[in-house]
Amino acid sequence: MSETPTAQTFTDTSARFAQIANPQSDIVHFNDPLALDCGGSLGAYSIAYQTYGTLNADKSNLVLVCHALTGDQHVANVHPITGKPGWWETMVGSGKPIDTDRYFVLCPNVIGGCMGSTGPSSINPATGRPYGPDFPVITVGDMVRGQARLLDHLGVGEVLSVLGGSMGGMQVLEWAATYKDRVFSAVPIACAARHSSQNIAFHEVGRQAVMADPDWCQGRYLDEGKSPRKGLAVARMAAHITYLSDEALHEKFGRTLQDRDKITFGFDADFQVESYLRHQGLSFVDRFDANSYLYITRAMDYFDIAADHGGVLANAFAGTKTRFCLVSFTSDWLFPTEGSREIVHALNAVAANVSFVEIKSNKGHDAFLLHEPELFATIGGFLNAAALKRGIGEKARP
Amino acid sequence: MSETPTAQTFTDTSARFAQIANPQSDIVHFNDPLALDCGGSLGAYSIAYQTYGTLNADKSNLVLVCHALTGDQHVANVHPITGKPGWWETMVGSGKPIDTDRYFVLCPNVIGGCMGSTGPSSINPATGRPYGPDFPVITVGDMVRGQARLLDHLGVGEVLSVLGGSMGGMQVLEWAATYKDRVFSAVPIACAARHSSQNIAFHEVGRQAVMADPDWCQGRYLDEGKSPRKGLAVARMAAHITYLSDEALHEKFGRTLQDRDKITFGFDADFQVESYLRHQGLSFVDRFDANSYLYITRAMDYFDIAADHGGVLANAFAGTKTRFCLVSFTSDWLFPTEGSREIVHALNAVAANVSFVEIKSNKGHDAFLLHEPELFATIGGFLNAAALKRGIGEKARP
Repeated sequence: MSETPTAQTFTDTSARFAQIANPQSDIVHFNDPLALDCGGSLGAYSIAYQTYGTLNADKSNLVLVCHALTGDQHVANVHPITGKPGWWETMVGSGKPIDTDRYFVLCPNVIGGCMGSTGPSSINPATGRPYGPDFPVITVGDMVRGQARLLDHLGVGEVLSVLGGSMGGMQVLEWAATYKDRVFSAVPIACAARHSSQNIAFHEVGRQAVMADPDWCQGRYLDEGKSPRKGLAVARMAAHITYLSDEALHEKFGRTLQDRDKITFGFDADFQVESYLRHQGLSFVDRFDANSYLYITRAMDYFDIAADHGGVLANAFAGTKTRFCLVSFTSDWLFPTEGSREIVHALNAVAANVSFVEIKSNKGHDAFLLHEPELFATIGGFLNAAALKRGIGEKARP
Repeated sequence: MSETPTAQTFTDTSARFAQIANPQSDIVHFNDPLALDCGGSLGAYSIAYQTYGTLNADKSNLVLVCHALTGDQHVANVHPITGKPGWWETMVGSGKPIDTDRYFVLCPNVIGGCMGSTGPSSINPATGRPYGPDFPVITVGDMVRGQARLLDHLGVGEVLSVLGGSMGGMQVLEWAATYKDRVFSAVPIACAARHSSQNIAFHEVGRQAVMADPDWCQGRYLDEGKSPRKGLAVARMAAHITYLSDEALHEKFGRTLQDRDKITFGFDADFQVESYLRHQGLSFVDRFDANSYLYITRAMDYFDIAADHGGVLANAFAGTKTRFCLVSFTSDWLFPTEGSREIVHALNAVAANVSFVEIKSNKGHDAFLLHEPELFATIGGFLNAAALKRGIGEKARP
């Protein structure tokens, strides 16, 4: 760059995600720095969140929902950018398994995200410009530490339950390991205690796709008024395949052609699956920041809860009183059942209260987001039992 | 482009792959056009090939080896670009399962490839410039039709056997279906009768990665003196993950760090698997043409041998006298055993002579290229029986 753009230039571009998200989300600004696992800290920072339902008088009915890699806080409301239903509207709402008539549901956008919580697209107070590649590399532990501060702010000590799938499940495990006395029950879904070699590999492909895009500008695309849209779309396409099962793709698309009778002998999207993937890639870049994608995938890669506890997974949960419910799906090849079972074994080793359900599904990893009646029944039932145990009556109102 | 570069400019750039390959490979130039499945034809064209061993007097000992997507004709000799051993040196050679003391082994580079056979990096005689995106979209059928011409040229009617893995296996199936009286035996390894939805999806990601690279120049990068190296490297990285099994990646790399004691909280290749993948991507672009990658992946996507025979796979093999040996690997998730079993069922339906071996291996799809003693025994034994049946004695010399 030969010239230094004005701060206004940055703000206009970089605050795009936050500006859109803000009208609907509450945001708390923290002035105390957040200590990070990398050794540094995040100065003044913000956490954006959505809530559903009402916190009861003794603040005992809070259900914390943790979102996945490309999710956000818009669990059960129309998404402000896409206009689509929230990502877990099947699960969270009045009369739903996570019943907002009974529970107070909170979902914060993770640190590093791009929907209002501080992340690489936020303005770095030290420079007045977007952090970009100067944002510190954060971990799942950092995300959870930030969320604990949010609960402090809301005056909630112990949550009734913390739930999440995929990276959401990693946060659940981190919560249970780090804040044992603040987690009455925990539901880690479709996740693992560490990111596998294959999963790191897929993330690395996505990051390389973003970084290969010249419009990434070494991470300073917001300064340049650019966006690595093509690279991010490729990253999303590759990732999206891993969220589905071979069988689901076959059932959904097979070799069906897209709006044509026969193959065209060209590179257009002849097959429906190509058209679908291209759409997934293109629509993603409208709602997600490329650097957030890099940072959050990295946080998942680094996740290894046993390594943080002397190499023994059970150590992470020693002395826990939390009630656990683990869920996996038979066709999930990104986070196979084996990973959940390993956590169950570790919990058994410390005599934890744990139940485990492997749900038969052909929908792959995405099953946790889709219509899976057995998942609804499992979570609804587990949460009800936890609530009753904690003295929250059925259909309890504040 | 505002200027039209000279033909010499194109030749210098585009003939790079061919120039390197030529010294070692025989090349046949055909002046008769090759009719293509797309309806067009390829005018004058070339096929580069390697041979090992000696053709016997009655030309009955030819073993045709078909290469996979990113393979080439250098089966059992040092590769002229990489300096590495041929891709099937474990299988082909003196005293090896495909014994060059006994068989005459032929491997042609496929049409559409970049190692001397006519492909998108070749000079289009109509323009004097590289074909680039003007190269016709070819199919596995076209590849095989070109190979049949090569056999005509060599004066060989029926081959003793045709073998290949992955796309090589698709060519084997195409050979057996289209040239029933020219295939004495056939060994399709780790393949399927059609490309699955998931496999099309992965190919589409790779193509989009190449096309997203501005140096792809809408396919005319050779005209521009450029190369979409970054995009092609990303495509290769994504594909490479699919060639290995989750278990193989875990055993090979796990979460082992690359030349460091602890994670660096950055985007360098902290994990060995990242470093390995980056290397795979970077080394690939030195030996492979980006447009060839687009065209050959497309040929695989289009492969659907049942569709070419009224939608009934068995029809493709009706009346066959070929002896078949199908091979799959337990941990191959790109071409799972199920796909091979479907072919076996179709062959059974037409009372073909077929044997089928599913080999227990944790190496994933790449197992067919690696040290798999059961594969060696299977192929050596099957080929020996076929040879004896055809009157070729053990250790027969011409």
